Parts: sequence; structure tokens; C-alpha cells
Amino acid sequence: MSASAAARQVSAFGWVPDFARGQVRDLRVRWALEEAGLPYSAALLDPGPDADDPYRAWQPFGQVPAYRDDQVEMFESGAIVLHIAEQSPVLCPADPAGRARMQTWLIAALNSVEPMVQDYGSIELFHAGEAWVAERKPQLRQMVAGRLADLSRALGDRAWFAGPFSAADILMVTVLRIIADDEVMAGFPTLAAYVARGVARPAFQRALNAQLADFSDEPPAKFR
Amino acid sequence: MSASAAARQVSAFGWVPDFARGQVRDLRVRWALEEAGLPYSAALLDPGPDADDPYRAWQPFGQVPAYRDDQVEMFESGAIVLHIAEQSPVLCPADPAGRARMQTWLIAALNSVEPMVQDYGSIELFHAGEAWVAERKPQLRQMVAGRLADLSRALGDRAWFAGPFSAADILMVTVLRIIADDEVMAGFPTLAAYVARGVARPAFQRALNAQLADFSDEPPAKFR
Repeated sequence: MSASAAARQVSAFGWVPDFARGQVRDLRVRWALEEAGLPYSAALLDPGPDADDPYRAWQPFGQVPAYRDDQVEMFESGAIVLHIAEQSPVLCPADPAGRARMQTWLIAALNSVEPMVQDYGSIELFHAGEAWVAERKPQLRQMVAGRLADLSRALGDRAWFAGPFSAADILMVTVLRIIADDEVMAGFPTLAAYVARGVARPAFQRALNAQLADFSDEPPAKFR
Repeated sequence: MSASAAARQVSAFGWVPDFARGQVRDLRVRWALEEAGLPYSAALLDPGPDADDPYRAWQPFGQVPAYRDDQVEMFESGAIVLHIAEQSPVLCPADPAGRARMQTWLIAALNSVEPMVQDYGSIELFHAGEAWVAERKPQLRQMVAGRLADLSRALGDRAWFAGPFSAADILMVTVLRIIADDEVMAGFPTLAAYVARGVARPAFQRALNAQLADFSDEPPAKFR
């Protein structure tokens, strides 16, 4: 391992509740690094750092992942995966048209799919029993179903969104995976098969196992 | 104008309701092109193209903007602005660390700020009178205020998010501008001044005027 590889760091939580295990967004960066064959170390922290915690200088919202290597310091899973993609032909097509398709679908996952998937997928988790959920959830479900129909049509019979497998699929698979077990996905077998194809990749499995292995069984003091 | 410049196209709506004028997301792409000094033409369409409309091959969700030039065909405002940024030192720092900061803040605007700003900023617009809004709106307001506090702290006394003005500010300014007139912004004078600094740029004003000039007074048949 070169000095530069040893210096590649990804922030991750050392403990999260069970429902979040395997979903925390450092998974995206770990997966990209595994696909690219780039070694890294995890910098573990407790969830919910205070506004004056030194970590906020690296990640201003107190979230994970943040990333650094010998050249850059970043946050936002999408931005970090894009940065890693620029270093690996496994993640980024070499021609300008293919690279633009990769950027397009990567950002589509982040800006046109994740917001509604996250709202819908987490409404019962974070707002169980609140009165507004009964009226709002069917609206969100309808928005998600419409977007999934568009995605399914756009993917068609191709294996991946931007041509060959790319960084775009790391984002799209991890976003769709948030609702992989929800009944709304049952209407879209093309997308269910796409997610299954993504998570079957050995690099995904290595990344998932690495995230899970980094969780402590014991919650930190403030979560006990 | 070279043949390549003449072929640079941005899709935009030829009519939208008054409340959306000056907010439609082709504004971001027009602004980036104005900053970079790259000529373009607008490809105008009616809002809400059907699922089988040929436009869906260019933009699968039926939204704007989509973009093409002599090398690429793209959609997603963030991806297109990133593509344009790669062609202009006005939008992208030359050093790897600065470029990574630009990518970080551009994607922060799209994935960590816009979803909650959009949910909060549009709740009264799209759901006026619905029972769930009364319970949900204060929750969204609190989330937005927390995120704005983080952003305000991160910006500090700097003029722009990634060092010099960059593509990241095109995204962050247009996202924050969605709630520029909302009372929640009054608590964050640093960010209000930041948005004012952004929209005062001559390139922003040219882009805004170009979007507004492309709107027809008469709604298309299906909106009459």
C-alpha cells in the first residue's frame, strides 16, 4: 500500500440503530472504492455530532460520509463517488458522451429519485402514528410510482443506466434499495432485477460487510 | 458563432404559470452558459409531455432542462452545469482540491439542501388547504432552519462556497432563492446576502431575462 492509499479516509458511524445498518451512505463510497480497487480506512464517529464538534469542519451537516485523500477533502456521497469515478475506468466511461451519461444518471439518482424515495421510505420510520401521515403517504406513494415507471421505461432491457456499469449505478442502486422491500417496487420487476444485479456484485458485498463490521454492538452513551 | 456553438441546445418550457416564472430549472443551465460565455439556443416545449412523447427520449421524467451539444446529450440541471463547468475556469477552480470543493458544494445543494427547501417552499403552493399541511409544515420549517444554520456557519465570512465563485454557487443560489422571500430566511442574513450577491451577477440577470422572454403569454391548449 502506498502512502497515498493509506491516507484515503472515509468517515462512517461506529454505531447506528438496527434499521439503518446497511443503509448509511458511506456504503456508496465504500462500494465505489471497492469497484475501483482503491484501499481506504474508515474514520468512525458517533451519530449526531454537536454543531461545535470539530467534525463539522469536515462535514458541516454532521452527517457521513466525508472523505479525504492526499489531494482533496470532500463530503456528500455523490460528490465523493464522482471523484473516485474519475480515477477508475470501471466507474466512468472513457468517451465524453458516456461520461456525460454517467454524470446525468448519477445526479438523477440524487436529485430526481432519492428525495421522493427517501420521503416515502422513511415516513413510517420517523413519523409513525402522526396524523398527517395517513393523508400524505398515498400522495408520496403515487409520486414514487410515477418516477419508478419513468425509470423502468428509461432502463428498458439494458443492464445499467449509462451503458456499462458505472458510478451512476452505485447511486441509483443504493437509492432504490431504500424501498427494495416496499410493495411499491413489486410493480416494477425491471427495477427490482436491476437492484438485485447491483447488490450481487462482489464489490457491493465487500462494502456492505465492511460497513456492518464497523458497527459496535453497544450504543454510545447519548443513545443509551 | 462556430457550428459547435450553434448546436448547443437547452430545453425549456414555452409557458408556465406565473408562480414558476424565473424558477424553472433551465435557469441554472442558462446562468452557467452565460458565466462561461457559451452561446446556446432554447428548445421550447409545453409542460407535462405525455409518457410516450418523443421528448422523453431526451428527458425521461418529462422535465426541463435537457441539454445537447456536439459531444453529449444530458439532462438534470446539476449534471449539465457540472459539464459546462468543466469547460470554463469561471465555474471550476483549476486545482484538484478546489475542483473537489466545487463538486462537493454543487452536490450538497442538490442532495442536502434542495429536497427540504423544495418540500417546505412548495407545500402551500401544491397542497393549500389539505389537512396534513398544518401538522407537517412546522416540522419542515424546523428542518430547513437547521440546515440553513449549518450552511450559514459553513459559509462564514466568505463570499462563495468553494473559494472563488463557481458552479457550486449557481446551484446553491438557485436552490436558496426558492425560499428567498420566506420568513425562515430572515434568521440567516449571511445567506440572504449570499443569494443577493448571486442574483446581482450580470450573467444571472441575462439568464433570468432570457428565461422570462421565452415564456408565451397564452397557455397551451391543455392548460386553458
